[in-house]
Amino acid sequence: MAIRLDDRAPDFEARFSAFLTTKREVSADVDAAVADIIADVRARGDAALHDWTGKLDRFDSRARGLRVSEAEIDAAVAAVKPEVMEALKLARDRIESHHARQKPGNDRYTDAIGVELGSIWTAIEAVGLYVPGGTASYPSSVLMNAVPAKVAGVDRLVMVVPTPGGEVNSLVLAAARLAGVDEVYRIGGAQAVAALAYGTETIRPVAKIVGPGNAYVAAAKRRVFGTVGIDMIAGPSEVLVIADRDNDPDWIAADLLAQAEHDKAAQSILITDDVALADAVEKAVERQLAALPRGGIASDSWRDYGAVILVESLDGAIPLSDRIAPEHLELAVADPEAMLGRIRNAGAIFIGHHTPEAVGDYVGGSNHVLPTARSARFSSGLGVLDFMKRTSLLKVPPMALRQIGPAAIALAEVEGLGGHARSVSIRLN
Amino acid sequence: MAIRLDDRAPDFEARFSAFLTTKREVSADVDAAVADIIADVRARGDAALHDWTGKLDRFDSRARGLRVSEAEIDAAVAAVKPEVMEALKLARDRIESHHARQKPGNDRYTDAIGVELGSIWTAIEAVGLYVPGGTASYPSSVLMNAVPAKVAGVDRLVMVVPTPGGEVNSLVLAAARLAGVDEVYRIGGAQAVAALAYGTETIRPVAKIVGPGNAYVAAAKRRVFGTVGIDMIAGPSEVLVIADRDNDPDWIAADLLAQAEHDKAAQSILITDDVALADAVEKAVERQLAALPRGGIASDSWRDYGAVILVESLDGAIPLSDRIAPEHLELAVADPEAMLGRIRNAGAIFIGHHTPEAVGDYVGGSNHVLPTARSARFSSGLGVLDFMKRTSLLKVPPMALRQIGPAAIALAEVEGLGGHARSVSIRLN
Repeated sequence: MAIRLDDRAPDFEARFSAFLTTKREVSADVDAAVADIIADVRARGDAALHDWTGKLDRFDSRARGLRVSEAEIDAAVAAVKPEVMEALKLARDRIESHHARQKPGNDRYTDAIGVELGSIWTAIEAVGLYVPGGTASYPSSVLMNAVPAKVAGVDRLVMVVPTPGGEVNSLVLAAARLAGVDEVYRIGGAQAVAALAYGTETIRPVAKIVGPGNAYVAAAKRRVFGTVGIDMIAGPSEVLVIADRDNDPDWIAADLLAQAEHDKAAQSILITDDVALADAVEKAVERQLAALPRGGIASDSWRDYGAVILVESLDGAIPLSDRIAPEHLELAVADPEAMLGRIRNAGAIFIGHHTPEAVGDYVGGSNHVLPTARSARFSSGLGVLDFMKRTSLLKVPPMALRQIGPAAIALAEVEGLGGHARSVSIRLN
Repeated sequence: MAIRLDDRAPDFEARFSAFLTTKREVSADVDAAVADIIADVRARGDAALHDWTGKLDRFDSRARGLRVSEAEIDAAVAAVKPEVMEALKLARDRIESHHARQKPGNDRYTDAIGVELGSIWTAIEAVGLYVPGGTASYPSSVLMNAVPAKVAGVDRLVMVVPTPGGEVNSLVLAAARLAGVDEVYRIGGAQAVAALAYGTETIRPVAKIVGPGNAYVAAAKRRVFGTVGIDMIAGPSEVLVIADRDNDPDWIAADLLAQAEHDKAAQSILITDDVALADAVEKAVERQLAALPRGGIASDSWRDYGAVILVESLDGAIPLSDRIAPEHLELAVADPEAMLGRIRNAGAIFIGHHTPEAVGDYVGGSNHVLPTARSARFSSGLGVLDFMKRTSLLKVPPMALRQIGPAAIALAEVEGLGGHARSVSIRLN
């Protein structure tokens, strides 16, 4: 049973603050092991990859080859049921057309005194995409990471995916094909991250690494950051549903459980002004849990981290939501548009009764890689900009340098940087 | 004397690769000390700040108060010479008008099947700006960090600056006033980063921390990352000048030294196709070094990390430049525009003979916080987007859910997420 809070209770602020700061993740301390693996891959390249893969994924990658061949990908595509392939294509197309709108425009202009300025966007040349193996291996995540990279114009998109026991995941390979991934390697863990960052005989290095992974992968990404770029380190997923009385409790319960089934550390929160709805949703959750294939996981998540927050008025839901800064926010209220403009911190907002968060996980078109653990206060979901970078341009004609140069010299001098001053003044004399 | 490379030499690739991977920074291992300071500030709040400030900055912040008062800032502004104040205002205005063009537009639209999608940008509510004390305390950096935050719409911009011996830096306070900083605290080091991230009795926490700092500050930022956002961790500065024969060697030498004077670990590189220019620049560097106030630092930097690279043709300069991915790139060539379109990796490009990098440090209008150490391959200079975040919107009407819902259900089922499938199917029955 989830906790219940009520904003009319005198201890509400204390309980809500404690709820906000509850840690949902215990990150294993694997940093020393990861450092060793990375050093080994840097020193021994492919040989190290083969050895770690044999040890951790239990198959002979020397015999199979590190790279997944085009023929293997062809076979994987053929193994996927046609209706699933169609669903993947629909998802791919919708993600592509939405993300195409995120492509930034260059800006170049001349200001009033004749100085030319500009911002020029270019794609990152090579990007690595980490895809987890086993049960956390989701073809939808391949699309969500790979399609924006290709929309951005990344030349070389390199996927790594561990294949425990040598078993490839057909769905993941099919999604990679659909998304335009250029190279696929059957490696995982910290060794795969090291190979992407530093390169080996077989794998050329990339400039940025994205994609989810376990504690080893996260620690390896933190370690190689600087040598390459990395995306955010995602925590357990979460949903906040703001609902008024006019809701089907079964629908709300289904949405809370869709989140809870991800992971024992996932979090589902309902905020409502209607105690009858709160009660009914809680009952519906218990009822649905019994029928859910991943009911055990969902039940643990709901018990340990779930919450039902009663508010006197739905107006009071908005500041609470902004403090939670949910990864996913569902507005199941009569006038969601009125509420929308007042919300500041959320990864993605799902509007109205027919937009369950799960549709956004697959085929809505928006990205499902979103900021977790309150980081929507300061960061955004994955998008095209994550695969591009901006170069600024400056061109000062002689007349304009005469105009602004003296100010540059004055500031350089008070900052004690005589060489800076001189590199301007030498052009004015 | 800087090293000299020549792309016609048989060992060029080996020497250039070695040059690229030269480490210019030895980061002190201060992580354990930083962890202790952060834990102390979290546990004891203001009391810990006072104790660490007394110990490390050697003045009594209990007596002075943590916050720098408006009266102190008024006094600082009054202490700055009028011509310097005017130069700061010119810089502020030019930075502001350039960055105003970076503000992203919201996008909301309905697609062909009636699904509404959107990307909504909002400013981060509260941002902390770290400003180093002592000799690395630059008013220009205050403007470069603070102005884009205010252009983005950050409500609460909180500056921290250590004041060794209790001495405030008038220029830094004046720049803070001009840039619209909302609160200033006289604290620094890991203790200031901890206060910004977790809050104390006096200082409310922020959601993101930006600005340069020493090894303690960098380690503290890495540690609080996740609780708050952070900007990139900047390394030593660098410039690459691509020059043809038609250049005044004194101008080029001045630009190389303007970079070298920053720091012994700074790096200045010249690529040219003209051996006579290369020789003349090297001589001019030696000559100018003697007259430079920071000649000792510049000389060490030039000797240890400087480079002159001769290329057979300037066409060959472009791929080398992209591999270097310089923070600052000057194009001192006859036709810079032709070269411009072929460059992919650079933080900022300074075009033509009258655009020394130093003018961009102060009054060009573009930002001087730029990616160092080859990170322009995957990241951008500081800008308005660093102070904003994007929320995605999705609104699926019932008819559209009927159209795309079955694909979501199919994908949820192959991913083993029955709860996801159910939260869609329950709305279709």
